[in-house]
Amino acid sequence: MVFDTICSISSPQGIGAISIIRISGKKAVEITSYLLQNRDDFLTLPANFVKQVNIFEDDKLIDQTMVTKFVAPKSYTGEDLVEITCHGSKFIQQKIIELLLKNGARLAKPGEFSMRAFLNGKLDLAQTEAIADLIESQSEISHKLAINQLKGNFSARIKRLRSQFVELAALIELELDFSEENVEFADRSKLRSLLQTLKEEVAKLTDSFKLGNVLKTGIPVAIIGKPNVGKSTLLNCLLMDERAIVSHIPGTTRDTVEDNFTINGTNFRFIDTAGLRITEDEIETFGIERTFKAIDKAEIILYMIDISDTSLEDVEKELLFLENEIDFIHKKLIIVANKIDQLNELPKHFTEWNDYDIAFISAKRNVNIEEIRELLTQHIDLHNISDTTLLTNARHYDIMLKIEQEINTIETGFAQKLPTDLIVIHINSILNLLGEITGEITNDEILEAIFSRFCIGK
Amino acid sequence: MVFDTICSISSPQGIGAISIIRISGKKAVEITSYLLQNRDDFLTLPANFVKQVNIFEDDKLIDQTMVTKFVAPKSYTGEDLVEITCHGSKFIQQKIIELLLKNGARLAKPGEFSMRAFLNGKLDLAQTEAIADLIESQSEISHKLAINQLKGNFSARIKRLRSQFVELAALIELELDFSEENVEFADRSKLRSLLQTLKEEVAKLTDSFKLGNVLKTGIPVAIIGKPNVGKSTLLNCLLMDERAIVSHIPGTTRDTVEDNFTINGTNFRFIDTAGLRITEDEIETFGIERTFKAIDKAEIILYMIDISDTSLEDVEKELLFLENEIDFIHKKLIIVANKIDQLNELPKHFTEWNDYDIAFISAKRNVNIEEIRELLTQHIDLHNISDTTLLTNARHYDIMLKIEQEINTIETGFAQKLPTDLIVIHINSILNLLGEITGEITNDEILEAIFSRFCIGK
Repeated sequence: MVFDTICSISSPQGIGAISIIRISGKKAVEITSYLLQNRDDFLTLPANFVKQVNIFEDDKLIDQTMVTKFVAPKSYTGEDLVEITCHGSKFIQQKIIELLLKNGARLAKPGEFSMRAFLNGKLDLAQTEAIADLIESQSEISHKLAINQLKGNFSARIKRLRSQFVELAALIELELDFSEENVEFADRSKLRSLLQTLKEEVAKLTDSFKLGNVLKTGIPVAIIGKPNVGKSTLLNCLLMDERAIVSHIPGTTRDTVEDNFTINGTNFRFIDTAGLRITEDEIETFGIERTFKAIDKAEIILYMIDISDTSLEDVEKELLFLENEIDFIHKKLIIVANKIDQLNELPKHFTEWNDYDIAFISAKRNVNIEEIRELLTQHIDLHNISDTTLLTNARHYDIMLKIEQEINTIETGFAQKLPTDLIVIHINSILNLLGEITGEITNDEILEAIFSRFCIGK
Repeated sequence: MVFDTICSISSPQGIGAISIIRISGKKAVEITSYLLQNRDDFLTLPANFVKQVNIFEDDKLIDQTMVTKFVAPKSYTGEDLVEITCHGSKFIQQKIIELLLKNGARLAKPGEFSMRAFLNGKLDLAQTEAIADLIESQSEISHKLAINQLKGNFSARIKRLRSQFVELAALIELELDFSEENVEFADRSKLRSLLQTLKEEVAKLTDSFKLGNVLKTGIPVAIIGKPNVGKSTLLNCLLMDERAIVSHIPGTTRDTVEDNFTINGTNFRFIDTAGLRITEDEIETFGIERTFKAIDKAEIILYMIDISDTSLEDVEKELLFLENEIDFIHKKLIIVANKIDQLNELPKHFTEWNDYDIAFISAKRNVNIEEIRELLTQHIDLHNISDTTLLTNARHYDIMLKIEQEINTIETGFAQKLPTDLIVIHINSILNLLGEITGEITNDEILEAIFSRFCIGK
């Protein structure tokens, strides 16, 4: 496909040693050449070659830059593409963009380079979406999920699923052919069995979204407990280590939400639960609803107690109350027994208590925090996770839910002995839906929604 | 020279579409090759070629990147140099740096790439310093000053100056030769005249630093006036326009000090003067010293009055007071007559008042703000400024001051008829000082001080 020529700053915003400006489209090379004093040198530059050139505005030197030329279809976008590596001054970046605009390029919309890569067949849609995830990835696990999807493993699985539905359609079409001869198939058992297999496969994917999504965006953790049990001290312990880990590499800073941290490559995200105050005799109502909502969103709950000032009976009473209020079935509850520094020895009735995972710590003295880290990551094995088995993208999840509905409709159709052609409609709908994931079937609206979440310059 | 291999993220910090990592040194190519699965493809890649390669940690794909190879001496540093263009995820950037360190590179110190460029003779010291200025440049004028210095115009002037001092030295050496024969030169007039010329040239450069420095860092402006005359409304008017101008280019944001703004390519910088309160009968002493200090630092003073509530006599009284307190000789004073929206017509005694530049405005209604802009930039002609006539670097300024001292010593020496060899010492000192500017004469301490102000990755 032939598009107009777009340009954008593609490196992170701000001032740095060097910045990258990209120009893509039919006139990328021509437009860039107008910025140079020695145009012909650049026009005759071979593909995949980098050259030092001076950029001028009229006869005024703007910058000494390096320019790389890529020729269609061998480029990220599949079009002619030029990369200018300039000095990372704000003035220079703006001036070069201005000059490109003046010479006929236009500013790229977010994700427009990637959209062209998709439209020119360089990547399928799910792979293109993986690039946005890749850029956002901050932890080993979110990186791994994105890279697997970029490699095309997930797309391959969706394509396999699609061909199985094509097979189902073929079997039903066969029935359709016969039905024209007014022969009714009493036995649709083979169809039903294939549909059942497909239904289970789709369900597996749909179910995996919850895990896939929290692994991608960070596993939500709530710290709850009475006032002054040491919740914020613990939070600081966990976050401070993280900061120390990250800050040892110059040139990289933490600029994400401050309550994110990574343990063994997995990203966790603290949910603000300010407000929960379970006292011995009463539950204060102030802020309680907000807190219950936060707990509801959490995958892991750190329930914190002051072990120097609590009896096992009290704790059990509080837990009983919590369990009556909140559905814990899919959550992991970890008891954090804090302030062990104020005891000579750990109380036996707590150490022998086997109902819950429990960590004995002193947040104040930074003792045994490692145990909490271990408990948090205990059930997550990075090596066994690949995105061929995990759905991580909300758009894909929505599509899968629609496919589940269609499958249910087909099942009901079988049960009610609906005519074959009515059933075929729903199978075709599923084929379309699966095509939307990889981009075989698409429309402008979908594309716009997908690429608007990309950053500028990609 | 042969150095160890350094690496660094060279694009601005943060998350973006793509980021650049640079590796420079004898083992740059070898170390990079260890990150790739198909090493030989990269080892045999010709110079100045870019190639798409996958970066692996063991058998785990980290990223799909583009790698460009530069071979010594044809690179920025003059050494073998590799540029990796990776996806701009924090995780990926960190991981690639980690892998490079693991394979024998070390993290570059700020400015270390540029220091190598200097040590390998790619640029002289003044040019290298211009690169740091170039990266920091935010306005057209600071960009122009830096680019002129980068082009070597300033270095050429310093070299010319140096050869003139060499000539002076030669003339004196001549005298020295004769003096051994016990002939004393009664007339040193030719020497004196040459020295006088050089002294004026040096003084011109030294004097130009004040303008060069304010043009580079922003011309300091103070807004003063009684409470409620509309000082902050005016400030907002001036700054808000600036924001609107800058924000129309996506991908670029203002992250500098908020009270900087650019008019016609010149950068201005507001100095906080909170505290000045000149009332009709008394001068409040609170904060007055701090304000006088601020005014003292300003090049331009916007003296603001409420024209709907002030008589010319009052203004003249206040100005008299100010002029007694502050040395206005080198400052520009602009009277800003605010709140014209509250008058039916402008008072004649103000419009006919020719003692000062005066602008009649309404900050609240954004009327005539343009006139202030014009008055601010009136005496600055960008086209006539080049850094061959302007000293912009504090280090160069310090050296010039030392040279002035040496010249004075030589003059005194002539007057006191000091022996030639004592005078020669001071000329040699000047030659050394001039060599320090361009880097012909240097030492580790000077280099460290210069390059520590560079950003990481340059």
